Amino acid sequence: MKAAVWYGKKDIRVENVEPKALQSDEIQVRVAWAGICGSDLHEYEEGPVFIPIEENDPLTGEKAPLTMGHEFAGVVEAVGPDVTNYKKGDRVVINPTLTFGNKPEDLDPYDGFSFIGLHGDGGFASYVNVPESAVYTLPKTLTLQDGALVEPTAVAVQAIKEGDMRFGDTVAVFGAGPIGLLTIIAAKAAGASKIIALDLSETRLQKAKELGATHIINSGETDPVQAIKAIVPDGVDVSFEVAGVAPTFKQAIDATKARGTMVIVSIFARSIDWNPMHLTNTGVKVTSSIAYTPTSFQQTVDLMGTGQLRPQGIITDQIQLEDIVEKGFEALTNDKSQAKILVELSGEK
Amino acid sequence: MKAAVWYGKKDIRVENVEPKALQSDEIQVRVAWAGICGSDLHEYEEGPVFIPIEENDPLTGEKAPLTMGHEFAGVVEAVGPDVTNYKKGDRVVINPTLTFGNKPEDLDPYDGFSFIGLHGDGGFASYVNVPESAVYTLPKTLTLQDGALVEPTAVAVQAIKEGDMRFGDTVAVFGAGPIGLLTIIAAKAAGASKIIALDLSETRLQKAKELGATHIINSGETDPVQAIKAIVPDGVDVSFEVAGVAPTFKQAIDATKARGTMVIVSIFARSIDWNPMHLTNTGVKVTSSIAYTPTSFQQTVDLMGTGQLRPQGIITDQIQLEDIVEKGFEALTNDKSQAKILVELSGEK
Repeated sequence: MKAAVWYGKKDIRVENVEPKALQSDEIQVRVAWAGICGSDLHEYEEGPVFIPIEENDPLTGEKAPLTMGHEFAGVVEAVGPDVTNYKKGDRVVINPTLTFGNKPEDLDPYDGFSFIGLHGDGGFASYVNVPESAVYTLPKTLTLQDGALVEPTAVAVQAIKEGDMRFGDTVAVFGAGPIGLLTIIAAKAAGASKIIALDLSETRLQKAKELGATHIINSGETDPVQAIKAIVPDGVDVSFEVAGVAPTFKQAIDATKARGTMVIVSIFARSIDWNPMHLTNTGVKVTSSIAYTPTSFQQTVDLMGTGQLRPQGIITDQIQLEDIVEKGFEALTNDKSQAKILVELSGEK
Repeated sequence: MKAAVWYGKKDIRVENVEPKALQSDEIQVRVAWAGICGSDLHEYEEGPVFIPIEENDPLTGEKAPLTMGHEFAGVVEAVGPDVTNYKKGDRVVINPTLTFGNKPEDLDPYDGFSFIGLHGDGGFASYVNVPESAVYTLPKTLTLQDGALVEPTAVAVQAIKEGDMRFGDTVAVFGAGPIGLLTIIAAKAAGASKIIALDLSETRLQKAKELGATHIINSGETDPVQAIKAIVPDGVDVSFEVAGVAPTFKQAIDATKARGTMVIVSIFARSIDWNPMHLTNTGVKVTSSIAYTPTSFQQTVDLMGTGQLRPQGIITDQIQLEDIVEKGFEALTNDKSQAKILVELSGEK
């Protein structure tokens, strides 16, 4: 079968790969659609970031070269003998987060985690074997293409929960890339009354507005904190840092009201120079979000199923697997108007 | 009257000062005892930090040179015509925190605040005039010397509340100076089941143990995070950063359990180099504490009155006003065994 395999930085190859033998607790999924994630892009541009290259990952037992892709949905092709809840033909979406499972789910990821598609073979392939515990049923109301959006949407759902955002709250989202856009969509679904999107790209801001932002601010053209306080004088209830750089980290704190919360959603590639008194002076709390709990993943499936969460608007392109480098990774690197690019595998609905 | 007046860094003069005219809403207090605070020491060693030198402070209308001292208690000497709740002879303690009062008390300090004794004339003097709103009745069970400990104890009470510390929780206190010691005392009074004190000074650690720490760790001799996890494997529920430097900031996060809280209590003199992913990786929230609300101040008075809070053990010396530089500021600078030094004014009980 064809698969997009990461060999190293700027070295992702679409090549023929032999499907693996199915383990007794595993399900073989015929992948229909798979999304390219910001993490995938990091691995392409400056990896390895997460991908294990020297020792096998403790959870997957694998290392590079490996097939990428952790946002995907498809149809069950075969099940191992110990699989109890799924059968051939079931339409499913995969939760790619693997943990040791020694703690309650809200503590579990802090004990260490791995991703199907980053720490082991993933969904940029015709078929992938995953443990039954990673598989969720796709509601009839959703297409398999919708299913490929569940994973990044679950990241946004978890972020909203980490910020303890309440019905009616005001929020600011710093960064209108894919996860920023999904955070806007999730904030809307959770009942935020004002959603202020900030970015340097006018194209992204227009997208943010289309997808539910009530206000958009171009941080390159105006002072973002002043602009937010012109809308919400005391600052927003909850802010989301989805850009991962020092200026937005500081702006997000300054834009939040005393006793409000700033949530770190992004990955910071490097340290920042910062005085902790910034919190003492503002009264803002800082927290963070990583992936999602199984509960949040299921809730995301359910909320998409009912139509309360409609992330489909973030899709900016659909491409073929053989074009994944040029029309996928390179396009995302060079074209800021791109948000979510989906790769068609079987292309089933 | 005699007063200790700040003129500049390393320039505090004990000199004769004329008492000011009493305003209609003010109370003249005959100061009995006044404590030297870490902030006072900062003003002496490297000031001005808070003390206004160019423009008058917006809340006090004063600037340097001014009489220091914001931890004090005494006896009402005279009251202005608009004062309704106090009369000559009342034993009182002063809440030196002045705010604009435009917000609920938990938000108020983030709108700006000033201190009697830092931004305006304070308690290192025979008499001081304060607004009636700053005055609290000292319970009969407490001496006026006890009263001088209310203010720093209220700082610790507020810190415990900011950390959302619950009955039975485990805590770590990084830094066993006066506020660290008071945080230990307050954590004990709030029902912490394990209180781990960390410092570089063996003398301070012994003091911490005397005052309620269940475990002491010398961070200079052993890895503090490992040592804490040997006691509480998943990390403490709440940690308090009361040292104000980068290493303890990071250690405090690492020593806290996922979903736990780290509270910044200290003043950071400079920025730190830090990656916000530290929170993403650990699942720890960071918050902070500044001064105390009027409610927390009253609760501190009440808890000291009932004997639930007994901060008296932090007193390491009692000195005369004329000795405040040599036996006060210089002693605190040079002798790490010193914690709280009280200055005797009238010396009444």
